[in-house]
Amino acid sequence: MLNVVLINDGSGRAVSLRKTLAEAGVNVIAEIEASVGMASVIAKLKPDVVLIDSDAPSRDTLEDVCVASEHSARPVVMFTGDGGRNTIRLALEVGVAAYVVGEVPATRIQTLLDVAIERFSVERELREELQDAKKKLAERQWVDKAKGLLMQLRGVSEDEAYKLLRERAMQSQRRIGDVAREMVEVAGWLKP
Amino acid sequence: MLNVVLINDGSGRAVSLRKTLAEAGVNVIAEIEASVGMASVIAKLKPDVVLIDSDAPSRDTLEDVCVASEHSARPVVMFTGDGGRNTIRLALEVGVAAYVVGEVPATRIQTLLDVAIERFSVERELREELQDAKKKLAERQWVDKAKGLLMQLRGVSEDEAYKLLRERAMQSQRRIGDVAREMVEVAGWLKP
Repeated sequence: MLNVVLINDGSGRAVSLRKTLAEAGVNVIAEIEASVGMASVIAKLKPDVVLIDSDAPSRDTLEDVCVASEHSARPVVMFTGDGGRNTIRLALEVGVAAYVVGEVPATRIQTLLDVAIERFSVERELREELQDAKKKLAERQWVDKAKGLLMQLRGVSEDEAYKLLRERAMQSQRRIGDVAREMVEVAGWLKP
Repeated sequence: MLNVVLINDGSGRAVSLRKTLAEAGVNVIAEIEASVGMASVIAKLKPDVVLIDSDAPSRDTLEDVCVASEHSARPVVMFTGDGGRNTIRLALEVGVAAYVVGEVPATRIQTLLDVAIERFSVERELREELQDAKKKLAERQWVDKAKGLLMQLRGVSEDEAYKLLRERAMQSQRRIGDVAREMVEVAGWLKP
């Protein structure tokens, strides 16, 4: 049985959605308004899915819900009357796992939520992989700059420069990228 | 009005889906079986969406359809009776833009396809960004190796090694990453 938190923006749709969820055997463990307290409710209750029920969700609401849910790794499903392309696009960009326009029969709710949960997980992996690749790229750039500085200022070879950075990283138990970045920033600050 | 290609695996569901699409005003421009000829049909007809109608799609079918569609940048929507978590996961991993279990009323078809089109576009950008970052990382790794080799074999500084690579890339009108990779590979082949 799935546990969900229902975020309600006070539209008239909420009544019928609540009825459909009950018929589908979905457990609404909390019903709250979109607000700043949302993140802590989601983090505390750890629902399987966060549902938004809204006639026409604002950009702010969408972003708030998705940020709040992402930190707790909860998929967001949106039920709405708004089938406009711009709203759809915006919702998907901020990370909504399923965007549903119009009424859904109770018999389809379970698989709809299952698909949303899997979608969230697949997309999360993709986004993490991207973040990881970007981080590695940035690290390499800092390391390259730091090596260049060391070669120039201390007259060492590239290999030796790399070893110096690695030793400093090991000594201070930090990532080599962070040590390199600190070095480049401090060096820039010392020598205008 | 949306144009779609319908891929049918001979399930009994096709009749009712065709009827629903007609009611929704969706134009089925071709109905084909999942097969190797699929990619060329999709590339030629350029439908707005590729629909798969299948009781229980195999991994092969899903991959074939998604590869065929990705090259022509067409979203794939799956209508199926299979609500199993494993099939859902597999379908989303290979790139299915919407996975729909059970019957959908004609009134919901248009927005369902609109959401799938936007989903495809958002996910495509994410995947392209990831590919780009991975490519840059790989290029940097080749350039680093090539620089190291040049410094060692020709006794030049890191700066000079980089300049040599850049000059060679400009002369041959190739990317510096490709020139670096070629150099490292040939050097490894010359000197076992």
